[in-house]
Amino acid sequence: MEIKVLHQVMDWNEDVSEEVKGTLAGHRICMINVMGSPGAGKTTMITSLIEQLRGTFRVGVIEGDIAGQVDAERIASLGVPAVQLNTDGACHIEAMSIQHILPELPLEDLDVIFVENIGNLVCPAEFRIGESLRITILSIPEGDDKVEKYPLMFTDTDCLVLNKYDMLPYFDFDEERVLANYGTVNPGAPLFRISSRTGDGIEELAGFISEQIRKAQS
Amino acid sequence: MEIKVLHQVMDWNEDVSEEVKGTLAGHRICMINVMGSPGAGKTTMITSLIEQLRGTFRVGVIEGDIAGQVDAERIASLGVPAVQLNTDGACHIEAMSIQHILPELPLEDLDVIFVENIGNLVCPAEFRIGESLRITILSIPEGDDKVEKYPLMFTDTDCLVLNKYDMLPYFDFDEERVLANYGTVNPGAPLFRISSRTGDGIEELAGFISEQIRKAQS
Repeated sequence: MEIKVLHQVMDWNEDVSEEVKGTLAGHRICMINVMGSPGAGKTTMITSLIEQLRGTFRVGVIEGDIAGQVDAERIASLGVPAVQLNTDGACHIEAMSIQHILPELPLEDLDVIFVENIGNLVCPAEFRIGESLRITILSIPEGDDKVEKYPLMFTDTDCLVLNKYDMLPYFDFDEERVLANYGTVNPGAPLFRISSRTGDGIEELAGFISEQIRKAQS
Repeated sequence: MEIKVLHQVMDWNEDVSEEVKGTLAGHRICMINVMGSPGAGKTTMITSLIEQLRGTFRVGVIEGDIAGQVDAERIASLGVPAVQLNTDGACHIEAMSIQHILPELPLEDLDVIFVENIGNLVCPAEFRIGESLRITILSIPEGDDKVEKYPLMFTDTDCLVLNKYDMLPYFDFDEERVLANYGTVNPGAPLFRISSRTGDGIEELAGFISEQIRKAQS
């Protein structure tokens, strides 16, 4: 019984995702779905990217959290339009929530919207939200076995960001293992090494994202 | 519609959880539900605790993972009975899965079973699995805002373990913030600081767990 209902919910999510995509295309906005574990550094990466991109593009942010609004306040303090999406306990964002919250952003004045998904390596990957691009973040302290253990998150993404890369000397992290597994489940997909703390690698990642924004706008 | 079904699933889970509890009580086994983010260090902590406890208690392990069996193999290599529970995509363990897999462990010969839940700070907390004790692990690299953002995981637990505590100097982690928030959502609940890498704090945590095993057996 519940499996049938789950399929209905997921089919319905796909339909709404397509509607959201249509709305965003109408405004020539590129929406980027940022996914990763709790504490992988999603907010900090978005903050660093805003600094790099804001000279060229008009950026908005949707901050997903189970509860609270600390992240939206952090982004809003940068002078960027930001709205908080609270899922009230749900472990992922669905397309319906994006459809509902989009009108709260000044869509006429945006080129790109970052959506920070709930910190979770499982469910967010199952739900399309109308995005043009998916970024999965894995931070060095999380360990090198995550691609094997949470395959969908690394398969259904457009790029992988290895964050907290400056911490590599302090952790027993076999980078080759991650590259090999990622290359197997998602052949040819790009990978970036960054440290949001030191700023290393952010410029290169911002360059890739700029290309994607231009593609979505063309 | 799906909400009604969800409630049915959760009510049913509670019933099965009570049945599992009865089975374990019949064997005088203490089952410990270990929860935390991907990469928080659940397997390594369990490994360290096995070394501390195995002189006194007979230990078994149920390793929960979406896919694969690397963790169960790691535990089995210690000579401890271990079974792998694959959830095939689900982001948490339910009581029914435990009920199903328990007969695969030698229950007559065990005092304690560690269940390593799926790496996830959200859904595992919503599902009782027949456990006597819940441990939530938060690792220093994940950041100090997790209690605010994922409150249920820190409310519905019997103790909090701060893992990778030796990494404190390298991260911008405000321990006071965590203690204050944890004290608010779960007043009086114990907290342990450990480093599975250096071994610091493991003995104290093992002492606490030994008490809980004895309580469950009395």
